[in-house]
Amino acid sequence: MNNLDHLCVNTLRFLAVDAVEQAHSGHPGLPLGAAPMAYVLWDRFLRHNPRNPGWFNRDRFILSAGHGSALLYALLHVYGYDLPLEELKRFRQWGSKTPGHPEYGHTPGVEATTGPLGQGFAMGVGMAMAECALACEFNQPGFPVVDHYTYGIVSDGDLMEGIASEAASLAGTWRLGKLIYLYDDNHITIEGETDLAFTEDVRCRFEAYGWQVLIVPDGNDLAAIEVAIQKARGETERPSLVIVRTHIGYGSPKQDTAAVHGEPLGPEALRATKEALGWPLESPFYIPDEALAHFRRAVERGARLEREWQALLDAYRKEHPDRAARFEQLMCGDLPADWDADLPVFRPEQGPMATRTASGKAMNALARRVPTFMGGSADLAPSTRTVLIGYGDFGLDEACGRNVHFGVREHAMGAIVNGMALHGGRIPYAATFLVFSDYMRAAIRLAALMQTHVIFIFTHDSIALGEDGPTHQPVEHLMSLRAIPGLTVLRPADANETVAAWRIAIERRGPMALALTRQNVPVLDPHRYPIAEGVPRGAYVLVEAENGHPDIILIATGSEVHLALAAREQLALRGVHAHVVSMPSWELFDEQPAEYRERVLRHDAPKLAVEAGITRGWRDYVGDTGDVIGLDRFGASAPGDVVLDKLGFNVEHIVHRALALLGR
Amino acid sequence: MNNLDHLCVNTLRFLAVDAVEQAHSGHPGLPLGAAPMAYVLWDRFLRHNPRNPGWFNRDRFILSAGHGSALLYALLHVYGYDLPLEELKRFRQWGSKTPGHPEYGHTPGVEATTGPLGQGFAMGVGMAMAECALACEFNQPGFPVVDHYTYGIVSDGDLMEGIASEAASLAGTWRLGKLIYLYDDNHITIEGETDLAFTEDVRCRFEAYGWQVLIVPDGNDLAAIEVAIQKARGETERPSLVIVRTHIGYGSPKQDTAAVHGEPLGPEALRATKEALGWPLESPFYIPDEALAHFRRAVERGARLEREWQALLDAYRKEHPDRAARFEQLMCGDLPADWDADLPVFRPEQGPMATRTASGKAMNALARRVPTFMGGSADLAPSTRTVLIGYGDFGLDEACGRNVHFGVREHAMGAIVNGMALHGGRIPYAATFLVFSDYMRAAIRLAALMQTHVIFIFTHDSIALGEDGPTHQPVEHLMSLRAIPGLTVLRPADANETVAAWRIAIERRGPMALALTRQNVPVLDPHRYPIAEGVPRGAYVLVEAENGHPDIILIATGSEVHLALAAREQLALRGVHAHVVSMPSWELFDEQPAEYRERVLRHDAPKLAVEAGITRGWRDYVGDTGDVIGLDRFGASAPGDVVLDKLGFNVEHIVHRALALLGR
Repeated sequence: MNNLDHLCVNTLRFLAVDAVEQAHSGHPGLPLGAAPMAYVLWDRFLRHNPRNPGWFNRDRFILSAGHGSALLYALLHVYGYDLPLEELKRFRQWGSKTPGHPEYGHTPGVEATTGPLGQGFAMGVGMAMAECALACEFNQPGFPVVDHYTYGIVSDGDLMEGIASEAASLAGTWRLGKLIYLYDDNHITIEGETDLAFTEDVRCRFEAYGWQVLIVPDGNDLAAIEVAIQKARGETERPSLVIVRTHIGYGSPKQDTAAVHGEPLGPEALRATKEALGWPLESPFYIPDEALAHFRRAVERGARLEREWQALLDAYRKEHPDRAARFEQLMCGDLPADWDADLPVFRPEQGPMATRTASGKAMNALARRVPTFMGGSADLAPSTRTVLIGYGDFGLDEACGRNVHFGVREHAMGAIVNGMALHGGRIPYAATFLVFSDYMRAAIRLAALMQTHVIFIFTHDSIALGEDGPTHQPVEHLMSLRAIPGLTVLRPADANETVAAWRIAIERRGPMALALTRQNVPVLDPHRYPIAEGVPRGAYVLVEAENGHPDIILIATGSEVHLALAAREQLALRGVHAHVVSMPSWELFDEQPAEYRERVLRHDAPKLAVEAGITRGWRDYVGDTGDVIGLDRFGASAPGDVVLDKLGFNVEHIVHRALALLGR
Repeated sequence: MNNLDHLCVNTLRFLAVDAVEQAHSGHPGLPLGAAPMAYVLWDRFLRHNPRNPGWFNRDRFILSAGHGSALLYALLHVYGYDLPLEELKRFRQWGSKTPGHPEYGHTPGVEATTGPLGQGFAMGVGMAMAECALACEFNQPGFPVVDHYTYGIVSDGDLMEGIASEAASLAGTWRLGKLIYLYDDNHITIEGETDLAFTEDVRCRFEAYGWQVLIVPDGNDLAAIEVAIQKARGETERPSLVIVRTHIGYGSPKQDTAAVHGEPLGPEALRATKEALGWPLESPFYIPDEALAHFRRAVERGARLEREWQALLDAYRKEHPDRAARFEQLMCGDLPADWDADLPVFRPEQGPMATRTASGKAMNALARRVPTFMGGSADLAPSTRTVLIGYGDFGLDEACGRNVHFGVREHAMGAIVNGMALHGGRIPYAATFLVFSDYMRAAIRLAALMQTHVIFIFTHDSIALGEDGPTHQPVEHLMSLRAIPGLTVLRPADANETVAAWRIAIERRGPMALALTRQNVPVLDPHRYPIAEGVPRGAYVLVEAENGHPDIILIATGSEVHLALAAREQLALRGVHAHVVSMPSWELFDEQPAEYRERVLRHDAPKLAVEAGITRGWRDYVGDTGDVIGLDRFGASAPGDVVLDKLGFNVEHIVHRALALLGR
């Protein structure tokens, strides 16, 4: 290591460690061990523009081991991102730009929110995939307008998580050669030596997934790291895992122990570490001038890289004007003007239709007009109706294919669509059965936290799926998804509400979850019911009581809306006049002005909600004087109509409960 | 294949396929392809007693590919379990013993509920682990009282799921030589050829995990399957994966296509299949007499096996009476009489204590008296305080160790503890941070569905964990867990409530989730507050209003109880008299008689609930006239007390909202 490199590496180390020390909180172990690999990557390879973190063709860098955030903040600061040193001094403090784990959208240069292990690994796969798909779509001979790497630093914890296994297998299948992960192989976990629980042969495992695996025996050997990354870049057909043997807490008295993982060194050990590595003791957050000058060359270099790319884009625009126009629209995140032109309108005469089927039709109508629309299913595409017909299968042989086969890997699917959305240029979707949203919940939460524009399609949305039984029947899932802050859940009642839901899913920012039926449901006449205006408001009066003054308001979502409509008829025969409110989305309804909400759920009428899921939460809408028909138990295996009927989802029961509520 | 074997295999095939056909629903593909391997396993190896499915030392068999349930039901019927043929004819019908996917506790002989892929794989690891631990604890020279295999049939879908990767790595680390999985390698998934998404080298991957991998190139070659299973049993140090190349829908016109995976063959294809395999066309559910006689030999053999084992147990009882007494207690699922003798009582004078710390002390007090108590953490044991001090680490070198190092593998951990509980002889626990319950949610749901007696320990239970920030701060998790039917969630307020919660966790059947603080909280004086009686009822009046007639009831859970207590004091200074209700468990409270519930949450007082999580759901307890202080957004990174204060969890805010509620 030459002197300048040495200085730079130690600058990163101690900026990070000083930040942790100042905060009395954080993880010094990773930065001390992994600073050399981070430095080599950023110094010799990373193509980025610190003054424009949003430059579309930048290399992506993910710190999947998000607990090492202090290292990332050190990098961002010294390389000239808009992250003043003051912010490093406010590490983990209220309102700072340097939270405990990196947060996308919060700190310039942070590409993804990480910390929950394995997520960063899988999001990087999504980024590399988006790059590959976009390159296929836009690059022309002599015009590599999309051409960048996706790098990451991953930890043993990342590799232990199942989501990483899933994502690694897909990256191998898709031959994402521009995906390069440096594995901080420090042999230590929180509970002790990795041997306690991690004895597998990582190299063989990743080779089995179709990766190139390279080994750097000494994590302080910058030249060896450089050679390995070079070799990783040279391999275009396989993603690369560079196993870098490091020492957690390098240089500190606690080196190679779990004690240095997640707690500040403390003043004495910090002093000893600085002494051991030849660092000035007296000035925390010290950045030698030569080091800073060296780091900051990245600012000029980055500006040049982006200028060169802009020049390439200018030439591309002349040579391939249509393509360039589409590309620029996509980079801005704009939709084509006519994006919704083909969306279908369904007529009751067409007969009943499952909302999953309507969704599939809407998706195909969108696919034609929205070239960024791309996604797939966790091996359930025929059931979730999510195939974009005629748009090919994504994979290296057909990198332009827009149908993604995720295999039975819901969790990686969730994170990969997050990664695609973070990359930009894609509006991704991910589909499975509603009950299996459990498998991907940690990724859905991150989508909500990052507000990525991803669309989760969850079909088979109730016990009405029937014979597959309780393991496949969602009961608590609508409510569990509604519980996640920042996620919009939509459960449309019919084919036309489904189309309206898709409009929202495409236009609205942030993640969306659609809950769709397996079974057929009647089509609501769009000329009779105010669907197009109603759905975006989350809830609306589908049918008024005959005299306009409801004795009772029946609220329902999804397939249960049709039961409510039928119950309304029955009640009318008994002189009870009911409004029926369709409520596809709690989140959208809660956003409405109080006056609108009162208009829909008027306080002067008792309310009965019907939804084939747990009742908890409905009290917010029906109030003390209302009632809820729901399901506070698991379902059962039998034909769907039987299950519904036996568990109380029939017209008779609704009428009975409505009358009981009215004291009749 | 000799004639009888042939007959037996086809009997299984067509019982399954006829059941699917009759139900017009189900999965014929797997039974047709996998019947030979199932037959060889059950015919030549499986040690079980069909007339006593609960025989403790039986081999366990798990159909991880639960969608092939019809094959399992066929096996159970022909081998003489209490599953009449009539039940196969009622496959997937309301009230039948043959639901769409196998359900533990519902059908005799079903060892685990499967269907959600990967779960069965991981639960089998838990069973093999329990066997290993119990063998270590109880076996003596000449007395192998615990000595059985755990077998399973797994599918490509199982192997794709991350949970299986996690579990496989652990099984390799723990060298579970008596775990043997047959992999139904049929090259077909729902979306098409497995090559679409599953190109990895399964053999190398599992060898990397430390497994023995054996290959059977022809899934109809019974002799080769037998040799492979024999070889698997011969390997005592490594779990074995036998890759059996099969043909989905074997013999049918749809063989080797996705079309035969999940839909009935239909009458024509069924006829063609029976013709192709030489099966009588006219009688569905046909069981040749010779085949049945052959299968049913298992009944006598099983009785003999159990008798021999009983004889062994009798001799063991004489030779090792104490050990035998413990073993028999454990088999009955009984607790030692003095199981709770060491549970601590905490005094306020000891100073404040985090409930995670109190939990750790309670656990260690239990460990001494409850030898079945065993578990671990997903690499967070020092933080979750879940180490059983002095009880060693589980692993082959120390199979009696009771501390399990799961690594960063929450999902497998959840399923493995399910498997341990299903096996019997262990009361297992699994620990991680509350926010990471998301990673294991599918396993928690199965625990609730199966009502396994497992204890989930979720520490760092609110934004009060502080600096780690929103990726680590649970907000929606308490409510999401409460949403799962059959799961009991307990969030104790202090050290003594924590001990009371542990009592419930040990004594109550079914799964339990404890939510515990990272931060210190005051200790409530057990002589002053009715903790021991109150906690089991889910909610109780901790302190009454001074005059006994509350102007307002403050309801809180966990650490927020102390805020409520302080707010009560402040309110009293302003002449407002408040009850404080501690509500550690909604589920337990909901089970109480109406009269008790009214006594605690009397309808004539306005109620204000305080919990550092989403507000949704609280309306059920506070009613229209009440209010909720919660958090309907993500948290933030800063010291815990700062985060709490900034987000409204302080005494002043509670007082303010209480007064507002009272219109003052």
